[in-house]
Amino acid sequence: MKKLSIVDIANELKVSKTTVSFILNGRAKEKRIGEDLVERVTKYVEEVGYKPNSLAKSLRTGKSNTIGLMVEDISNPFFASIARLIEDRAYKNGYKIIYCSTDNDTQKTRELISMFRDRHVDGYIIAPPEGIEDDVEQLLKDGLPVVMFDRHLPKVNTDYVEIDNLFSTYNATRHLIQQGYKNIGFVTFASSQTQMLARMQGYKDALKESRFAPVVKEIVFNQDEEMIIKPMMAFFKKHQDLDAVVFGTNHVGTCGLKVFNTLGIKVPGDMAVISFDDYDVFKLYSPPVTAIAQPVEEIADNVITVLLKKLNTKGGSTASHSIILKTNLQIRGSSSGLKID
Amino acid sequence: MKKLSIVDIANELKVSKTTVSFILNGRAKEKRIGEDLVERVTKYVEEVGYKPNSLAKSLRTGKSNTIGLMVEDISNPFFASIARLIEDRAYKNGYKIIYCSTDNDTQKTRELISMFRDRHVDGYIIAPPEGIEDDVEQLLKDGLPVVMFDRHLPKVNTDYVEIDNLFSTYNATRHLIQQGYKNIGFVTFASSQTQMLARMQGYKDALKESRFAPVVKEIVFNQDEEMIIKPMMAFFKKHQDLDAVVFGTNHVGTCGLKVFNTLGIKVPGDMAVISFDDYDVFKLYSPPVTAIAQPVEEIADNVITVLLKKLNTKGGSTASHSIILKTNLQIRGSSSGLKID
Repeated sequence: MKKLSIVDIANELKVSKTTVSFILNGRAKEKRIGEDLVERVTKYVEEVGYKPNSLAKSLRTGKSNTIGLMVEDISNPFFASIARLIEDRAYKNGYKIIYCSTDNDTQKTRELISMFRDRHVDGYIIAPPEGIEDDVEQLLKDGLPVVMFDRHLPKVNTDYVEIDNLFSTYNATRHLIQQGYKNIGFVTFASSQTQMLARMQGYKDALKESRFAPVVKEIVFNQDEEMIIKPMMAFFKKHQDLDAVVFGTNHVGTCGLKVFNTLGIKVPGDMAVISFDDYDVFKLYSPPVTAIAQPVEEIADNVITVLLKKLNTKGGSTASHSIILKTNLQIRGSSSGLKID
Repeated sequence: MKKLSIVDIANELKVSKTTVSFILNGRAKEKRIGEDLVERVTKYVEEVGYKPNSLAKSLRTGKSNTIGLMVEDISNPFFASIARLIEDRAYKNGYKIIYCSTDNDTQKTRELISMFRDRHVDGYIIAPPEGIEDDVEQLLKDGLPVVMFDRHLPKVNTDYVEIDNLFSTYNATRHLIQQGYKNIGFVTFASSQTQMLARMQGYKDALKESRFAPVVKEIVFNQDEEMIIKPMMAFFKKHQDLDAVVFGTNHVGTCGLKVFNTLGIKVPGDMAVISFDDYDVFKLYSPPVTAIAQPVEEIADNVITVLLKKLNTKGGSTASHSIILKTNLQIRGSSSGLKID
């Protein structure tokens, strides 16, 4: 079969080369090209069997129109919803997203960066584990834009989109104190990532202001949920004086609710509850659980906007943005005030 | 800098070429190579700056050790957990997974297949939308293995892993009938995919046996949850005689619970509930929701086992497997029997 070029297609259909190119690169919507024309071009292309090899094209143009997205764990609803929103917005802008889970594993993340690199990814969106500073520096040195989200690497000067973690847990803990709770625990995953340290600090700051003593349980993350529930069960059995708890992540919060169900701990009668991250489990629990809602749409919007700006700036400026977004404390039945006897 | 080969590295460190290769390809764990040796090799490789280009390697060996995984929507907990499990198992076998959401959009899926193809993906795992038969046929013709899951394309002869959808809803509906319910609705997404047709049929078969009339609501999928909740609200307001409902997917089920909360419909007093798919929302709801639990670990295991077998068979046999797994009806408080007045 004769190998057709975009020019051949454009001549045959009497439309411009640019239009054909936009359509074949999935940018028709963005460029407001009419559906009739899109269908005429794609139909013809199917008939004649024209297949642009995008890798060959990427070697020629230096662009693959693909973005690599690395989350910690795609089965976590927070990362899953962010990934979905980023994918949507990227697709509307003519970019495809390929993603993978880092598992917070430094070695795995380095391998994945290298794989993305060999596959000519144009830009990187990473929720970074610790220890990948050198790899990210190398990407930046080679002119490949990197935007981080959820947390950042303090020693690497690159763009990131985060939320105000410290204020979020400070504010949530203050809310419990104002409701009359005095023995407030904090249960979270053991981590020295920036966002997790800040969440811990916000909780401690609020308690310190009121001269209450912190009661903290840090649990080592485990894929097997039973290994998270067991130590939490022991913690709540030991600290029967707690009247409220702040959970550091949605995953910890969900496990906590399971522990309360098993131990027969009533919410909020025996224990007031606030969890980081908002999702359906918290909305549909009885009583609904007060949650620190991250602005997932805004996070996704900002991440993709910053990255697209970098991608569209030839020889891109190296000035980096830190965007810190606000969370929203969704107050629900699980943190309502203590009954005064 | 002198370009080093694997042989140079092996000679310098006095270890075998194969060992170095396994380590650099991330297969050390699988090959039970000691951590000390792995560290010695990776450290040396870092020092000398050896960078294997895996795409160049894949052009040479014809293998990229990458698998493309296409789910419908990564923000759906069912697909997110399957993706995570497949990623885990693939990684342990020396394969990396890159994934993306098809959105059930035929055109987007075709573009994604073409992108994966240009990136030298070794094999494909797809929860297929309709209309991609030709693209899959072309992959198979070119010797690229494809395993489908969740649903299949009846006209394409390839491996797939599914569950027994018809029996699952038949069995769930029978359970409601045995509990004394007589006006049982079925609420689902409008779809002509194999798995959704089978779920509908199972429900209808059970009702027919008992000579009850089906009451079905098919909702057009929408990213905006409000557009799912609204028609469902109207449906339940109209059919006040319903005493039980089977939801066709976890997403529909979650929206249904939100509708019941808003309308003040008590579960199971006003309405007994069973949903397809089991996840934390259903486990933690009061009362906990009876769910048709898919064996997600088994699905992931079977998908990756079938695909690896194909990948490891040179010039692979074309015989295809259909693996149909059983679901488990998790009976909980939401479907307990009618009070006899």
